[in-house]
Amino acid sequence: MVVLPKSVEKVIEEFEKLPGIGPKSAARMAYFFLRAPKERSVKLADALVDMKEKTVPCERCFNIADMTPCSICSSPDRNQYSICVVEEPLDVVALERSGVYTGVYFVLGGVISPADGVGPEELRMSELRRRVLSIVTPGSDEDMQSPPDTESIEKRLEVIIATNPSLEGEATASYIVEMLRKISTQEAKELVSISRLAMGLPTGADLEYADRLTLKRALEGRVTIPSQR
Amino acid sequence: MVVLPKSVEKVIEEFEKLPGIGPKSAARMAYFFLRAPKERSVKLADALVDMKEKTVPCERCFNIADMTPCSICSSPDRNQYSICVVEEPLDVVALERSGVYTGVYFVLGGVISPADGVGPEELRMSELRRRVLSIVTPGSDEDMQSPPDTESIEKRLEVIIATNPSLEGEATASYIVEMLRKISTQEAKELVSISRLAMGLPTGADLEYADRLTLKRALEGRVTIPSQR
Repeated sequence: MVVLPKSVEKVIEEFEKLPGIGPKSAARMAYFFLRAPKERSVKLADALVDMKEKTVPCERCFNIADMTPCSICSSPDRNQYSICVVEEPLDVVALERSGVYTGVYFVLGGVISPADGVGPEELRMSELRRRVLSIVTPGSDEDMQSPPDTESIEKRLEVIIATNPSLEGEATASYIVEMLRKISTQEAKELVSISRLAMGLPTGADLEYADRLTLKRALEGRVTIPSQR
Repeated sequence: MVVLPKSVEKVIEEFEKLPGIGPKSAARMAYFFLRAPKERSVKLADALVDMKEKTVPCERCFNIADMTPCSICSSPDRNQYSICVVEEPLDVVALERSGVYTGVYFVLGGVISPADGVGPEELRMSELRRRVLSIVTPGSDEDMQSPPDTESIEKRLEVIIATNPSLEGEATASYIVEMLRKISTQEAKELVSISRLAMGLPTGADLEYADRLTLKRALEGRVTIPSQR
């Protein structure tokens, strides 16, 4: 016997397509809207359509924004010679929340994951390459009229690789390192320095419950404390 | 620095209001729609509004339906003398999926939960009482013109209490039992029999991992197997 009205089943179906939402959560979400006043549904419906209409990918960093170039890329307060490479727009949000980064970003759009059929071609690797070249290769970008070696200390580009500390994130980081090394040695006379976010124990962690790999990384990356101030 | 476009923040805000959805899942869901083609957003938006317009609560069982009385309540194949009392519409879906129940339902709309400020008045207790009375008290319902004691064996009403086996579900079950006992002794000359879903080990469970209370219930409710066939 069919118990669910077709219109309810349709909402459940749409929710089920969301990442991390199984049939049960989808049904619970649909029932939430059934019980809530009509404005709840209308508000989400409007917000969804509005979001699609009002956002664009930034042409420089590929972050989701309401204009292009985005407010970060076009800000005079941000250091254009520091590019933090992240997987997803949400990583930009997380890093901005930390409040310590003053450079710009580059959103890859994912990670290399052969299991999911995602190779470097599916990500924005060639765009990243072009972006880096436009900064470090004289004449290739209108912002860079003066050859960078005249101000080489200031104009050295740092690429901070901030992919996740997962298997896929590490593989993607390695791929980027290789790509950037080639640029740095062949085309840009070592004008690109590459770094990776530090690994170790997260704040508030309990040593007892830290996994083996985290502890290994924390030990390898240990910081010497001077014996006297 | 504000990183998220306002329109994206609005979608995240709306998703965060859903049950079981925290800020991170809400953001992930919003980004899913950002990356997906526009039709995804439009489909969900339309489905949500459509659902609110096309569904009504059934006037008899209070299940969500596309007409009232709902298809179950108005079906000649369903035993109107068996009422299964559940917390939520999703419980009806689960029981229907089992395919063994042929009676009708009554959706309470929640459970008694003093911690959440939900008392019996917030649930459909008086509606349940009225429903039961309309079936077992002669003359109070047009369907019941003949006094029920003429066909007392067939017309005895069974109320199956199918609230969840949680603290709140048990408290709610006790409340319903009290209410029905009063009806049965005072007004309906024992025409209401009350039952509760069986408790025990779920199929596929591992004894080793079953909690204490489940094992206690499984032992208490053990079924004797005849020594010979």
